[in-house]
Amino acid sequence: MDKMRKFKELLYSSETHYIIDAHNALIAKIVEETNFPAIWGSGLTLSASKGTRDCNELSYTQVLDELELMSDATNIPIFVDGDTGYGNFNNFRRFVKQLCRLGIAAVSIEDKIFPKLNSFLDRHQELADINEFCGRIKAGKDAQTNSDFSIVARTEAFICGKSLQEALDRASAYIEAGADAIIVHSKSNTANEVLEFAKCWNNYSPLIVIPTKYYQTPAVEFIKAKIAIVIWANHNLRAIVSAVRKNAQQIYHENGVINVENQIANLDEIFKLVRDDELKQSEQIYLNYSHIKEES
Amino acid sequence: MDKMRKFKELLYSSETHYIIDAHNALIAKIVEETNFPAIWGSGLTLSASKGTRDCNELSYTQVLDELELMSDATNIPIFVDGDTGYGNFNNFRRFVKQLCRLGIAAVSIEDKIFPKLNSFLDRHQELADINEFCGRIKAGKDAQTNSDFSIVARTEAFICGKSLQEALDRASAYIEAGADAIIVHSKSNTANEVLEFAKCWNNYSPLIVIPTKYYQTPAVEFIKAKIAIVIWANHNLRAIVSAVRKNAQQIYHENGVINVENQIANLDEIFKLVRDDELKQSEQIYLNYSHIKEES
Amino acid sequence: MDKMRKFKELLYSSETHYIIDAHNALIAKIVEETNFPAIWGSGLTLSASKGTRDCNELSYTQVLDELELMSDATNIPIFVDGDTGYGNFNNFRRFVKQLCRLGIAAVSIEDKIFPKLNSFLDRHQELADINEFCGRIKAGKDAQTNSDFSIVARTEAFICGKSLQEALDRASAYIEAGADAIIVHSKSNTANEVLEFAKCWNNYSPLIVIPTKYYQTPAVEFIKAKIAIVIWANHNLRAIVSAVRKNAQQIYHENGVINVENQIANLDEIFKLVRDDELKQSEQIYLNYSHIKEES
Amino acid sequence: MDKMRKFKELLYSSETHYIIDAHNALIAKIVEETNFPAIWGSGLTLSASKGTRDCNELSYTQVLDELELMSDATNIPIFVDGDTGYGNFNNFRRFVKQLCRLGIAAVSIEDKIFPKLNSFLDRHQELADINEFCGRIKAGKDAQTNSDFSIVARTEAFICGKSLQEALDRASAYIEAGADAIIVHSKSNTANEVLEFAKCWNNYSPLIVIPTKYYQTPAVEFIKAKIAIVIWANHNLRAIVSAVRKNAQQIYHENGVINVENQIANLDEIFKLVRDDELKQSEQIYLNYSHIKEES
Repeated sequence: MDKMRKFKELLYSSETHYIIDAHNALIAKIVEETNFPAIWGSGLTLSASKGTRDCNELSYTQVLDELELMSDATNIPIFVDGDTGYGNFNNFRRFVKQLCRLGIAAVSIEDKIFPKLNSFLDRHQELADINEFCGRIKAGKDAQTNSDFSIVARTEAFICGKSLQEALDRASAYIEAGADAIIVHSKSNTANEVLEFAKCWNNYSPLIVIPTKYYQTPAVEFIKAKIAIVIWANHNLRAIVSAVRKNAQQIYHENGVINVENQIANLDEIFKLVRDDELKQSEQIYLNYSHIKEES
Repeated sequence: MDKMRKFKELLYSSETHYIIDAHNALIAKIVEETNFPAIWGSGLTLSASKGTRDCNELSYTQVLDELELMSDATNIPIFVDGDTGYGNFNNFRRFVKQLCRLGIAAVSIEDKIFPKLNSFLDRHQELADINEFCGRIKAGKDAQTNSDFSIVARTEAFICGKSLQEALDRASAYIEAGADAIIVHSKSNTANEVLEFAKCWNNYSPLIVIPTKYYQTPAVEFIKAKIAIVIWANHNLRAIVSAVRKNAQQIYHENGVINVENQIANLDEIFKLVRDDELKQSEQIYLNYSHIKEES
Repeated sequence: MDKMRKFKELLYSSETHYIIDAHNALIAKIVEETNFPAIWGSGLTLSASKGTRDCNELSYTQVLDELELMSDATNIPIFVDGDTGYGNFNNFRRFVKQLCRLGIAAVSIEDKIFPKLNSFLDRHQELADINEFCGRIKAGKDAQTNSDFSIVARTEAFICGKSLQEALDRASAYIEAGADAIIVHSKSNTANEVLEFAKCWNNYSPLIVIPTKYYQTPAVEFIKAKIAIVIWANHNLRAIVSAVRKNAQQIYHENGVINVENQIANLDEIFKLVRDDELKQSEQIYLNYSHIKEES
Repeated sequence: MDKMRKFKELLYSSETHYIIDAHNALIAKIVEETNFPAIWGSGLTLSASKGTRDCNELSYTQVLDELELMSDATNIPIFVDGDTGYGNFNNFRRFVKQLCRLGIAAVSIEDKIFPKLNSFLDRHQELADINEFCGRIKAGKDAQTNSDFSIVARTEAFICGKSLQEALDRASAYIEAGADAIIVHSKSNTANEVLEFAKCWNNYSPLIVIPTKYYQTPAVEFIKAKIAIVIWANHNLRAIVSAVRKNAQQIYHENGVINVENQIANLDEIFKLVRDDELKQSEQIYLNYSHIKEES
């Protein structure tokens, strides 16, 4: 599909692209209208929006159900956070097939064990066996039903306190196993880890970073390092939490909405986002259908 | 359950209470922490969050799946917008049973036909036959598995351009059929319609209003009219749309998040909202379990 | 897709074809291995297998979830009983889009109102307005994402006690609105109604019949009437009920399975039906993956 | 709930009870009408019925969706095959909470790793770490929301080629961790393994066996060994496969159903199983509701 090809172009262009999180179809539409070239289907924000923790409390079918709605609502590529692939090679390849069916453009899989734990939580994190993980990647690649679908391998080597060499060795093995690109993840407050990795990696494959913790790094650093995609991984959800807290508190304390009315989107904007215009037109066509053709 | 009793207390207290919309578990938790006494499980905002129109594009099981997560994440009553009950008396009573199982406190059902159309859309709206609708209410009441569960009948008489008398006649019939309370809905820019209704109704049952269009009405008017509950029906979703648009645009134009970082919730707040502390404690208990008891 | 084209070929060949019900993936696989050319995704048997009545107690997404598994498990066309289309034109066209995504070959829609009632139940049945129903058909045709997908209009005119002329008028209007074929349904104990219809219809479009009640009609009658497809609509489910009752009673009374063991499929047959051989081969490939390539 | 207490009574009575598999609501109802005291919610047969392998290809929410329908359709206890608990302690305790909500009476959890592999497949099977598995059990017990809910620990020690001593040590540890009963599983063609276990176990807790392979063992042996429950784990599904193959082939070859009609259940039996009588009565009540009360 077209969305899959567009994502491939982001990976292989010579520029650095920026994408941002969405956890439901409405946020995905706003990301699209803002002109971001793709949507990050974040595991953390999808989980959190449903009141669950980022450790596979949601089942893979619950995740697919939301992705289906996100995909149906938008025309730009969705790059899905596939966590550890929801089990072993067999679970992952089933997940990949279903993503292809939904028109999802790409998925990342990280080198940890099911159930995963969010990378920023201060607890023991353990890497998967490298061969077993390569088997998961290869199974996914063999299972994709569209040749333009991308599988991105994410190494948590730095998250697990491993060396640059281990990160590089793993990333190489993952590319050998079929991965289309690498995410090198880091919870450092500076970009040093990922930039050193990028230097050694020397553009061996497209490289993706998630500067949640090292957000102060200027864009130019990522461009110089030839990063293909920078993911703002959870900033829309975080903006939502702040905004709803402020909105709800003001309404609660004022017992009224007069003062918030002009700060928030109006109902027509909501109807427009979900394409009520299309429904209205369709009602005119289909609810007024007449089986008796008029004389001409 | 306790949540059901708490909602009944809101209905029957002598005060006017204010509640606000949530369309997922995270927003529901924020509504709870803001001290609102209950959550409005809005059909419009749930639909819109999933990129769908407010005309039953989502199936009733898709709605239940989200409500389950919202109910599990919160301890205050959830009052669900049940649209027209998802079909006839039989579909509605099945829906009611499932709501009871999920610990939902109350549901509203409106006197229109499946599939419903949002009340604020400028198209033909048709009322249900009064007897058929009373049958739906009675079936729901007979089906609820907890005596404290509430069914609120919502009359769209004013939405459909009917008279005050028809609104009152219908509301009376709905109470006779078993409804615990009435929502009288209006798309007027003033509260006149609902306040006249309230005056004639004379507190015959608890009365609920949704001042989306007549939002400029001061709270004191609702208090004087002895309104039991005022619903701010979609304001959290509308705050989200504004906030995400602003956030996404700023990040898009700045190619970075440095300037938004301090405007938005940080990750720790997200982890706190989904109770990561509980997970961490539980990991310490259950991951460190030893089947060999230490000597004392 | 290929499945869709194959179903079209059944409709337009000069022969009469016979298809049979399946309500889950396992039964669908058995239908396929028996060499039936297609599978009837019966609404009655899917509902009954889940303990629900044939009046849309299941949501359309519950139906889609089962159809997805059935479609993934088989390579022959699935012809889905779409009841009345799960609401109005808009619900039906959404359903059609999702069927296309799942690789379902065809859907039937009947000219009654949501929620439908099974045609064989002895209660009042009411036909939909002809224009409104034609609008539903047209919306479905306009929404299908694959040109080979078929929409079959089913007229319940005879079920509702209407005349042959009304049945013919409706069927003609449905074809004009875009339907690819007609099901003419009857609860008569003889085939007279449908054979008279077929005679007047004179092969104006492919014609499909469901001889549940007039099962004694010899095949040659359907062939002479140029019926494209004969549906044995619920016979597999009915065979299951008899078989399980007999099996469970024998085991219950004998407190053992020795005497049933040789009457029933063995476990290896079950493993074979779900392609455990493929899993075993895949385990050998993906669980034994080595990232270090051997020297050649 | 009552169902939970009834299952506890089966565990603690002095008799040996026999239960049998069901994979959907209809089969569950037939098990109930046959007078079996409980239903085995088999993982293998549920998976196979959906065309999937018994290695957690279905998500835990897909399993719950089917269990909900089974539980709603029946009044006897359902004992669910919980595989390995769908992940770690956290996944299992979430599963347990949802089972309690659905009115499921009991769940078994086996001492292997997610994703599990069917015990009868001739491949490497690996036991879970004993402490980690005890943590899973304890988390489940601490999470159950009804004190009568039972968690049964299933040891696959024999399946994995371990000694009687290891089986006993593990079973003891599992009881210490809170398990209400033990399943000792075996793929031997004789009951020797499980009977030796039972002898040494000496009724330390209720004991459950699954004589799929050692089916020739007479009931009296299980009674002498004070087995609480014997599970016929997949015999209904296997009866279905045989019956549908026979039925479908006959209809296929005869191009007609005349000869099968009297071998299979008739439609009225299907309508009776799903309680169409209740629907008919309810239609009379709720569709004929009149809001104008008759004069007395």
